[in-house]
Amino acid sequence: MHRQNFRIYYEDTDAGGVVYYANYLKFAERARSEFLRDAGFENSKLRKDFSIGFVVRSIQAEYHSPARLDDIIQIETVLTEIKNSSFIMKQSIFSDERLLFTMNVRLACIGNDFRPARMPIELRGAFYERRSGN
Amino acid sequence: MHRQNFRIYYEDTDAGGVVYYANYLKFAERARSEFLRDAGFENSKLRKDFSIGFVVRSIQAEYHSPARLDDIIQIETVLTEIKNSSFIMKQSIFSDERLLFTMNVRLACIGNDFRPARMPIELRGAFYERRSGN
Amino acid sequence: MHRQNFRIYYEDTDAGGVVYYANYLKFAERARSEFLRDAGFENSKLRKDFSIGFVVRSIQAEYHSPARLDDIIQIETVLTEIKNSSFIMKQSIFSDERLLFTMNVRLACIGNDFRPARMPIELRGAFYERRSGN
Amino acid sequence: MHRQNFRIYYEDTDAGGVVYYANYLKFAERARSEFLRDAGFENSKLRKDFSIGFVVRSIQAEYHSPARLDDIIQIETVLTEIKNSSFIMKQSIFSDERLLFTMNVRLACIGNDFRPARMPIELRGAFYERRSGN
Repeated sequence: MHRQNFRIYYEDTDAGGVVYYANYLKFAERARSEFLRDAGFENSKLRKDFSIGFVVRSIQAEYHSPARLDDIIQIETVLTEIKNSSFIMKQSIFSDERLLFTMNVRLACIGNDFRPARMPIELRGAFYERRSGN
Repeated sequence: MHRQNFRIYYEDTDAGGVVYYANYLKFAERARSEFLRDAGFENSKLRKDFSIGFVVRSIQAEYHSPARLDDIIQIETVLTEIKNSSFIMKQSIFSDERLLFTMNVRLACIGNDFRPARMPIELRGAFYERRSGN
Repeated sequence: MHRQNFRIYYEDTDAGGVVYYANYLKFAERARSEFLRDAGFENSKLRKDFSIGFVVRSIQAEYHSPARLDDIIQIETVLTEIKNSSFIMKQSIFSDERLLFTMNVRLACIGNDFRPARMPIELRGAFYERRSGN
Repeated sequence: MHRQNFRIYYEDTDAGGVVYYANYLKFAERARSEFLRDAGFENSKLRKDFSIGFVVRSIQAEYHSPARLDDIIQIETVLTEIKNSSFIMKQSIFSDERLLFTMNVRLACIGNDFRPARMPIELRGAFYERRSGN
């Protein structure tokens, strides 16, 4: 399981006094980028070396409790499914062990033409090593 | 059905060349705010006159096709379920009749203490008039 | 003088209860994009037809009074200086005739290689027609 | 001098391929929040214990070179002037020792009514200890 911490700043909050709902998706994307970087495949390298990128195809998210200014949040990211050209991650956000947010997100690999592309074998290998259950 | 148009600016896009995935949720929130305003209940009035606000409880979203810089997108918002203290909307985003994004979003009414609150009867009345099927 | 209105949504505000300070620059950029579009040169066209874009080189901004949720703001944009490969705009943001924000912004024209580039003659012509004082 | 590092993610970039110009102000605000936290005065504490906050009054910024996806940027923050109810900071952003961005920002202390307020003596003391030149 991959863990990543982020601080909540003013930019993340709204006039309701808590974190704006779309911004949890930003934190989740940052954590996925760090997951990829830890696996040796940062986004800019994937584009330069393999001419691929990832796009989100679908999300299912639950908002349990709000994060607030100055909180430190912890994101847990788990790879739950790996296919030839897509994968699914489950991401959970906590603050002080309180569950704030959970999301299942399906991502597809695309080429420079925005069309579906197979994931490079090196990347799939790194994914299998990091798959939940391993 | 409620319809609202927005233009895509640089702020909405990312280095992938298309709109960043979290920003569709911003467009959807703008459209829900306009839906409420058209019904006579803009957000700042709800907080001042009724001491309530809305928080998102869950979303299920599908990303079909990306929006790009300078596109005009159209958001359709439909109320599909109304309860005492929550409701569900279905929102679809199009560009030139091409479907880009769909989302089911459940919102809960909360008081100033962030606890669930019943929706004011005036608001529920306005919601029933605007419910899908009416 | 070019005028453009925008509505303030939750995404624009922060936990301080007013619009987050960086977001006035977003509104200003939207207005500059509309200025260019009105002149016949929208951003995506500039990149496709002329292989150029604009980058901000410097800003001087004053924050006079905050915008709040549900406000409609009006942005006035004036071209104050035109050179071969850069220009200066003065932008002012109002809400109900109350001055909120003023900014002088210098933009430079760059090519696909991010190096300074001369502005196309057609664009400079359109700029001269729209210059303050004309 | 206060130093703080941040990573550049997709959310920070735009379709021009580099960081969107308003987002440097976000990084600068994060760094100012960390400066205050290091001094013992995080934003939420200032609001709760002293009923004050800070608003930006003016900025002068220069954009020297763009940050890109996956870059790590370093922000240096220096207190250059301290008054009874306001202060000035100079902030510089680097990536790999390359200067990207500099900003002078004047902030004013306000009370819950958004009116100017004197800074608490404890905070001014902490500021004097951290002033440039000390």
